[in-house]
Amino acid sequence: MHTETNENSIFPKGEKTSPAYFTGTAWLNVLVPQDERGNYTIGNVFFEPGCRNNWHTHPAGQILIITDGKGFYQEKGKEARPIAKGDVVVIPSGVEHWHGATKNTSLTHIAITNITEKGAVDWLKPVTDEEYNSVH
Amino acid sequence: MHTETNENSIFPKGEKTSPAYFTGTAWLNVLVPQDERGNYTIGNVFFEPGCRNNWHTHPAGQILIITDGKGFYQEKGKEARPIAKGDVVVIPSGVEHWHGATKNTSLTHIAITNITEKGAVDWLKPVTDEEYNSVH
Repeated sequence: MHTETNENSIFPKGEKTSPAYFTGTAWLNVLVPQDERGNYTIGNVFFEPGCRNNWHTHPAGQILIITDGKGFYQEKGKEARPIAKGDVVVIPSGVEHWHGATKNTSLTHIAITNITEKGAVDWLKPVTDEEYNSVH
Repeated sequence: MHTETNENSIFPKGEKTSPAYFTGTAWLNVLVPQDERGNYTIGNVFFEPGCRNNWHTHPAGQILIITDGKGFYQEKGKEARPIAKGDVVVIPSGVEHWHGATKNTSLTHIAITNITEKGAVDWLKPVTDEEYNSVH
């Protein structure tokens, strides 16, 4: 595991995420693989500036707790929501969306992702540069 | 709601917790009352120096994510575990324990508390000064 941190970060960055699901570079530190009832998993995600994940859905939803930096959360067909340190995003099940950093700042969030028999996430297409640039 | 923050805090402090369950002063900011399946609640707790909660149990467990400061986590009959920014504590169901700040530093943690039909926490006796002082 990588243990690089910046001065204010709470957790080590962890491992690079799969380029299949992210544009740019992001890092995942799994904090709790699953709780004792198997209902959710907890991870810390660090997005470098310009990085965002693909469009995706969660079969039982996800909660993001933004602990540092600035970025965006966008649901399909809606205006992007700027997000920053101290914000909480409750993502309903089945809603197509993406999240990531701004072009010039990193974004760090804790993600509590609900687990189901059908998994925890369904990955879709990348967020194109045109889509990403349009929210700035 | 109180909105005082210190420079590095992620969230406003929220509301003072009940003196029935804490020795000293702590603050609770409910971040997510419950997730969409009703499995857990998420709150941010700020313990002032010297503050700790009572001995208690959780019927389905709790997870603490320490985001700032220093403190202790102790299970009944075991040595206290020092905890600090970046630590994660997985508290099993039914295990009697307490957590709180050190005498001279505050402690801030996010708590993900599993919900059951029997509630989320069973409060027991206060941590005495003798018990608290002995872990320092």
